[in-house]
Amino acid sequence: MDLSTYIRDIPNFPKSGVVFKDITPLLKDPKALTLATESLLDFITDAKVDKVVGVDSRGFIFAPLLAQKIGAGFVPVRKSGKLPFDTLSESYDLEYGAETLHIHSDAIEKGDKVLVHDDVLATGGTAKAVCQLVERLGGEVVQCNFLIQLTFLNGADKLKGYPIRSLLQY
Amino acid sequence: MDLSTYIRDIPNFPKSGVVFKDITPLLKDPKALTLATESLLDFITDAKVDKVVGVDSRGFIFAPLLAQKIGAGFVPVRKSGKLPFDTLSESYDLEYGAETLHIHSDAIEKGDKVLVHDDVLATGGTAKAVCQLVERLGGEVVQCNFLIQLTFLNGADKLKGYPIRSLLQY
Repeated sequence: MDLSTYIRDIPNFPKSGVVFKDITPLLKDPKALTLATESLLDFITDAKVDKVVGVDSRGFIFAPLLAQKIGAGFVPVRKSGKLPFDTLSESYDLEYGAETLHIHSDAIEKGDKVLVHDDVLATGGTAKAVCQLVERLGGEVVQCNFLIQLTFLNGADKLKGYPIRSLLQY
Repeated sequence: MDLSTYIRDIPNFPKSGVVFKDITPLLKDPKALTLATESLLDFITDAKVDKVVGVDSRGFIFAPLLAQKIGAGFVPVRKSGKLPFDTLSESYDLEYGAETLHIHSDAIEKGDKVLVHDDVLATGGTAKAVCQLVERLGGEVVQCNFLIQLTFLNGADKLKGYPIRSLLQY
């Protein structure tokens, strides 16, 4: 089963000139959903992961699944105004403007081994900010994994020092 | 294990006078995450569920988990501008203003048995709109389930005819 056949290219979304990788055909197919889950699980070789952090909002799709399968907790990282308790935040530059991400201040305990998951690794700005939030709370990022890595955007350069895994590369 | 002890009340969020039910303490605890998952699975008595629909964005946390466990596919319902392919949409009234939800036009096949999941059942407007989207695509809603039901908001009235289950009631 070739998971790449379940990824649909959408030209000019969300804006002109961008080819969006639509993962919904993969998600709606039970066999593809299970194979993607198992393949992401195969990436996790650390003996102990305490928390899986998923990024708002498509990172929420697989991160809790991985967490539950490996006996870890799930922690959401979200955009401003979404998390109700005390938060730490990190801002980072986008192509136009900036983005701010938040994590609950009690989400990670000192020494926690943390897996960071998002659906797509693009320029790496989002994942880098998430790793910084985890580390500010005393956690150790043991891996960043992704369904899709857009290698031409060089996100891996921004994540040097962190083990990176991805299911599909473009 | 009493899951209600993992729900944190946040007064005046997202606005004055509202007590927000924060599920992040439950999510970050591996045992509570697993018990919540298993309890939601226990609700599913239908022999066959083809798709689990989760609502943007906290509905994405458990819906794919349930889908993967029961061998169904996962379908996201999202707010405007988020789904990249052709969509159907439903608008509904909120206390102030209105909200519009979208589903991909190819997400559900005619005759699909569909489970609708969201984290919280409040007034029921969101879940009702999701059920209507599923039905417009020819799907049959076999259950709506929720982590939390705010019974004083009478959401069940709006979902008459649909089997409803919730883990925690307030």
